[in-house]
Amino acid sequence: MKNYTKIKDISNLSETIKDAILLKMNPFEFQDLGTHKTLVMLFFNSSLRTRLSTEKAAKNLGMEVMILNVNDAWNIEFEDGTIMNGNSSEHIKEAAQVISQYADVIAVRAFPTLQDKAKDESEYVLNNFIKYSTVPIVNMESATAHPLQALADAITITELTEKVKPKVVLSWAPHPKALPQAVPNSFVEMMQNLEVDLTITHPEGYELSEEVTKNTIINHNQDEALKNADFVYVKNWSSYNDYGKILNQDENWMMTKTKLGKAKFMHCLPVRRNVVVEDAVLDSEQSVVIRQANNRTYAAQVVLKQILEEL
Amino acid sequence: MKNYTKIKDISNLSETIKDAILLKMNPFEFQDLGTHKTLVMLFFNSSLRTRLSTEKAAKNLGMEVMILNVNDAWNIEFEDGTIMNGNSSEHIKEAAQVISQYADVIAVRAFPTLQDKAKDESEYVLNNFIKYSTVPIVNMESATAHPLQALADAITITELTEKVKPKVVLSWAPHPKALPQAVPNSFVEMMQNLEVDLTITHPEGYELSEEVTKNTIINHNQDEALKNADFVYVKNWSSYNDYGKILNQDENWMMTKTKLGKAKFMHCLPVRRNVVVEDAVLDSEQSVVIRQANNRTYAAQVVLKQILEEL
Amino acid sequence: MKNYTKIKDISNLSETIKDAILLKMNPFEFQDLGTHKTLVMLFFNSSLRTRLSTEKAAKNLGMEVMILNVNDAWNIEFEDGTIMNGNSSEHIKEAAQVISQYADVIAVRAFPTLQDKAKDESEYVLNNFIKYSTVPIVNMESATAHPLQALADAITITELTEKVKPKVVLSWAPHPKALPQAVPNSFVEMMQNLEVDLTITHPEGYELSEEVTKNTIINHNQDEALKNADFVYVKNWSSYNDYGKILNQDENWMMTKTKLGKAKFMHCLPVRRNVVVEDAVLDSEQSVVIRQANNRTYAAQVVLKQILEEL
Repeated sequence: MKNYTKIKDISNLSETIKDAILLKMNPFEFQDLGTHKTLVMLFFNSSLRTRLSTEKAAKNLGMEVMILNVNDAWNIEFEDGTIMNGNSSEHIKEAAQVISQYADVIAVRAFPTLQDKAKDESEYVLNNFIKYSTVPIVNMESATAHPLQALADAITITELTEKVKPKVVLSWAPHPKALPQAVPNSFVEMMQNLEVDLTITHPEGYELSEEVTKNTIINHNQDEALKNADFVYVKNWSSYNDYGKILNQDENWMMTKTKLGKAKFMHCLPVRRNVVVEDAVLDSEQSVVIRQANNRTYAAQVVLKQILEEL
Repeated sequence: MKNYTKIKDISNLSETIKDAILLKMNPFEFQDLGTHKTLVMLFFNSSLRTRLSTEKAAKNLGMEVMILNVNDAWNIEFEDGTIMNGNSSEHIKEAAQVISQYADVIAVRAFPTLQDKAKDESEYVLNNFIKYSTVPIVNMESATAHPLQALADAITITELTEKVKPKVVLSWAPHPKALPQAVPNSFVEMMQNLEVDLTITHPEGYELSEEVTKNTIINHNQDEALKNADFVYVKNWSSYNDYGKILNQDENWMMTKTKLGKAKFMHCLPVRRNVVVEDAVLDSEQSVVIRQANNRTYAAQVVLKQILEEL
Repeated sequence: MKNYTKIKDISNLSETIKDAILLKMNPFEFQDLGTHKTLVMLFFNSSLRTRLSTEKAAKNLGMEVMILNVNDAWNIEFEDGTIMNGNSSEHIKEAAQVISQYADVIAVRAFPTLQDKAKDESEYVLNNFIKYSTVPIVNMESATAHPLQALADAITITELTEKVKPKVVLSWAPHPKALPQAVPNSFVEMMQNLEVDLTITHPEGYELSEEVTKNTIINHNQDEALKNADFVYVKNWSSYNDYGKILNQDENWMMTKTKLGKAKFMHCLPVRRNVVVEDAVLDSEQSVVIRQANNRTYAAQVVLKQILEEL
């Protein structure tokens, strides 16, 4: 693997999922692979799971890890040709090239503005790192995608499914803050590549990009959508068409035990209890969110393993 | 050892102190014990000694260490059953379970509010980590206790005492800010378990919890209390009864060379010079504060060693 | 080497540069040297290159690294004899002695105030660490010096020069913020110790300390100064005489492709594009700034190696 910035970077998804499950059983098997290799993790935003699981994954492979909160360094300029007499003191061209010399792999987290759709869709942070770095880049959640989360989700469904083709429902949920579409985008794309029967349900106005949803079934009636679901992935996102806006916070879209039926409950975390989902769901055996978070380690580890193998 | 959240978690104190002193002489003897084990250190508050000494202790044992300032992650909710539509985006139930999967041991620092006595005494941060984590928890100073500091203090007194039963005095000192009772609480409890003759001295109104002091001698006359002391532990704390309040800042309670007599001077650090204690004391050979800080490493190391041995 | 706080701490510069170039070819050769040795890196200020390259250098030598942003710990007092009832809760005397017990080497970054010349020139942060620490100190940029950068610069010129005695020009550049003199100070001192023909050019009023420049040629005519240059080091600094002030921001002093001629372009980074230097220079093959940044690793590594060899 050259980079892991999008799901398409995985050349063989079913093999990759199998490998991740093997790593989970024997996490230290490839400790020599990372000897004398360094992962630099760069955070433009908050992180708990991604930070700890990716660091752990790298160390499981014997890598050194260096972490930099961009706040502890310099404001980075991403525009080309600008006269840098404002707040930015370092250009991405230098930053990316320089860090490439200290790193064998660079992992980057950079959330969207949710203000400027074109800018966010250009993935200006991630793509500038890809453009100017001379080492592989791993996406730890960018403006429009969270492929490590989606891979962990695919591992989780593969581990737990009792059917050849389970029914998976992505169900929008209310939230007090405007959140990115990165997680649902990547989840939808990943599900389109797994043997599952996928339905998306959300209030009108919350349509994801058509480039993401393609011909996936969208049903605005949550009850209908959830019928006979095996896995229900609940997630808030802000409007894509009315970009970054909160159109409603209708409590009726919160996931409940009744609505869930016999399905497994999935969420990428962090999750707001009794806003996105009621306690009764999270505290039940049907919730697999803790397992999902655990699988973040092995998603990151299989990705780093495939990258290291091609270094 | 299952957890180290309170002094009572030590099953054999004198053996533990002896072991710590052996580790100090040969810190890398048990480097294999921590192989493939990870300590996650979580900080809700500032730290210098605790952070560096605990990280060092873990690495001395061959562990991997991952550090998370909670500010770099998400605001954590500790209340049960709340509708999380405010500032907290992640519940402790998820946070603790998730981190447990990345860690073999979790160490937590969480200071008190000093506003809400009942909340602080409930140890809601620490106890929620104990409740929801699936791995051992180490207390790096909680609302009401600092057992790693107290263990370092016990090691220090054991190393330095020339008597079978030295006289130890805990002497309150003035301070411009309201400080927790965690350090004096744990020091008193630790001294009650050592072969020492303990006296506490402080102005009226600064009584510690009776559950802590029990039948320990309390003398409001500092001069009398300090007479013939072998070790004087100086520390400020805010009022316990008039919770979190600064009742006075009487300079006469500052420790001086004259008051100290021939005793050793102890303090957990950081210490405000010429407010808590005069320069002449800290700069004299009688001060053992630097040794105490060094013993923080071996206190943490013996605790982690005992935890690792039972994993 | 006992400390590396100033260029004079290098006993044999040409040997040290040669050693650094050897380390660059074989960075892991001395991995045993750092076994069971710990570098503590302390940051009072922002850092990207210094942080990552120094951490990497230490790990290349097999050291453990512990990083502390001083903001995550306690405000440190540097004045002697003060009554500490203000914002500082820990004195440098304790901080330095304590950290020395957790570290085999301490590296410190502490920028100047640019307000109080006497205070900055006293190097009160760095010198107090030197005074009170019991382990070697490495300067990761202090108020008046950046010797690791200067060593990386010397390595870079040594690698690239095609002449026995190349012409090196240090050329001031405009900048929207008041910057320290640390980088130009150390660069000038380093060049005075290399086989180069050094010229400094800057607008009137930007004279560096005469203790630094000594008898180095200073030419206020940039065009004349740049003639036949082999290496042009561009850098902004604020006024030394009118301390910390920005006297002018004359765009004509920005480095351009035309002015550069056939010389190599050097800068310590971060650099503001189209303010300090135009894009055409940075994006050309004549720019060696990325190489300079890479050499930071081997500058730090050769310094740490020489320190470890004397531990």
